[in-house]
Amino acid sequence: MNNIALDKKLMFIALKEAKRGIPYVYPNPAVGCVIYDGSKILSTGYHKKFGENHAEHEAIKNLDEMVKGLTMYVSLEPCTHTGKTGACFDLIDPEVFDRVVIAEKDPNSEASGSIEKLKKRGIKVDLGLLKHEARKLNKRFYVFHEKKRPYVILKYASTLDGFIAQENGYSKWITNEKSRKENHFTRSICDAILIGSNTARIDNPDLGSHGCGRDPKIVLIDFDNALGSLDLFKKKPIVYSSPELSNDAGKNINFIMNDLYKKNIQSLLVEGGAKTISNFLNFEIFDELHCYVAPKFLGKGLNIFQGENSIEKNYNLELVDTKMIGDDLKIVYKKSYT
Amino acid sequence: MNNIALDKKLMFIALKEAKRGIPYVYPNPAVGCVIYDGSKILSTGYHKKFGENHAEHEAIKNLDEMVKGLTMYVSLEPCTHTGKTGACFDLIDPEVFDRVVIAEKDPNSEASGSIEKLKKRGIKVDLGLLKHEARKLNKRFYVFHEKKRPYVILKYASTLDGFIAQENGYSKWITNEKSRKENHFTRSICDAILIGSNTARIDNPDLGSHGCGRDPKIVLIDFDNALGSLDLFKKKPIVYSSPELSNDAGKNINFIMNDLYKKNIQSLLVEGGAKTISNFLNFEIFDELHCYVAPKFLGKGLNIFQGENSIEKNYNLELVDTKMIGDDLKIVYKKSYT
Repeated sequence: MNNIALDKKLMFIALKEAKRGIPYVYPNPAVGCVIYDGSKILSTGYHKKFGENHAEHEAIKNLDEMVKGLTMYVSLEPCTHTGKTGACFDLIDPEVFDRVVIAEKDPNSEASGSIEKLKKRGIKVDLGLLKHEARKLNKRFYVFHEKKRPYVILKYASTLDGFIAQENGYSKWITNEKSRKENHFTRSICDAILIGSNTARIDNPDLGSHGCGRDPKIVLIDFDNALGSLDLFKKKPIVYSSPELSNDAGKNINFIMNDLYKKNIQSLLVEGGAKTISNFLNFEIFDELHCYVAPKFLGKGLNIFQGENSIEKNYNLELVDTKMIGDDLKIVYKKSYT
Repeated sequence: MNNIALDKKLMFIALKEAKRGIPYVYPNPAVGCVIYDGSKILSTGYHKKFGENHAEHEAIKNLDEMVKGLTMYVSLEPCTHTGKTGACFDLIDPEVFDRVVIAEKDPNSEASGSIEKLKKRGIKVDLGLLKHEARKLNKRFYVFHEKKRPYVILKYASTLDGFIAQENGYSKWITNEKSRKENHFTRSICDAILIGSNTARIDNPDLGSHGCGRDPKIVLIDFDNALGSLDLFKKKPIVYSSPELSNDAGKNINFIMNDLYKKNIQSLLVEGGAKTISNFLNFEIFDELHCYVAPKFLGKGLNIFQGENSIEKNYNLELVDTKMIGDDLKIVYKKSYT
């Protein structure tokens, strides 16, 4: 095995270790670490739970003895901030470690900066090995810190001809019970869930995870300050209204994204309705699209997309998964950033 | 193994044999046969090619010697007509066969009737074992003979919001090249392909299988006898026009289906446009639906479904398959007959 293949193999092991921490490390990223002496793996470690040791700390702790000339493989740049557990950077002793291989930089400016510091200590640093895989593992974390907004999932349920409700607004239920259950699970793994004024007023939905896990924080657009009497308000939602919101949908989305970022909301499920979903689509503020398609045709009603595009309009949607749920189909797209 | 489990096992082998004849036996059904002596399989056989021996003939031919007390498992009722190869019924000698197990009756009235005749000869007949599987194997054949119309596949390509063309009619290309290739293959395994007047006039499509296999016969609705100058006419299509056609879409479809049945068209691919597909949907004259969905939103244009339903309207569409084709998605539904 050549050096690159060996490096890759060891970084894959670090990534596999990292995965073991999901979802317990949230809102931290999942990180794994491997320590290698040039002929064999001496130890591994991963960040197990939020507030507990980081991966590097675990791997070093698992070493039988400190010897010279070791290489560390770690799926994220070691942190420099003391936080809850002390800086990982301080644990990487140049008397022990000759080389540190890092998959990807830490996008969190409060924690990053160790690469230059390690180099100054005389440690060789290689950055970028299996970067794509490392980013995928912590995609929500990267979007949150790099784009300074939550990771956004748009979700809707429509007929084959694109309708989410009849002309009279009636929409219960287009998809089957299992499809709705599938989405309750998605709710349980998102920090917050957002709906627009019309959906709140017409559907007055529950927005909970229905026993699938924790309930997301509710985010409500109450444009005209007119929804205060709804049951949803008992759940203490984050509410955005005029005059914070204007008639400029793009500005409104950016304002909300920025505010949710400040509120430390790392992931947001947008559940409609058509106007809200369309605004997120039009301004291309989203990372995933979950379409639940029922084997129905309505012909008339409320179409999911309130806008107008040519056939050439490209949202850079990458089809990543489908799931047959009875006769409903869940289609998952990922936004490719261009 | 009890008797039922043993019967099933042997019929499964007959069905597996049958499959070997697909697609060479067309327009005949695929049939397989197993001969069993009570402790072991003595021979198997299947219908290999149109015009050649039927499955029963092959299995009997493959016997080393004729002995008493045999059971025949055959996936379709043995034929009674002489056709190209002589009646299979005549080969089933009551001196040799005590029992014949048949998965399903022959829906072709010209060939059926052997069950009663076998019984009269003193042979025990069991009918209906793995009937569902046997019907599935020859679904086009059953629809053709039982419903006296072709097996109909509706195919369209749309955006996620249900549009098949822009408002100006422009629709090339909503889906990607590989999706179109996938559909060219479907064309190659259908006897005929049908389009309506508008699609012919606007798209003037080729409708061939583009090297995937044989080209289907073209069936054209030329309502006003106005399309004679199109290139398609060089391919000698079957054309339906007024006054054969009236303003009653239901009557028109039934007329066309009946005529194609008489013309021995066993399978028909309907490729649109919206009006034509919607008529077949509305009158529920179809067996499969192939939706090719592109990751696009148009917002305005020609929607695939020209009609009006409530959410409760149930087409009894069973989701049977999906195929990811790049970022396009092919969704296959089967019509469940209620």
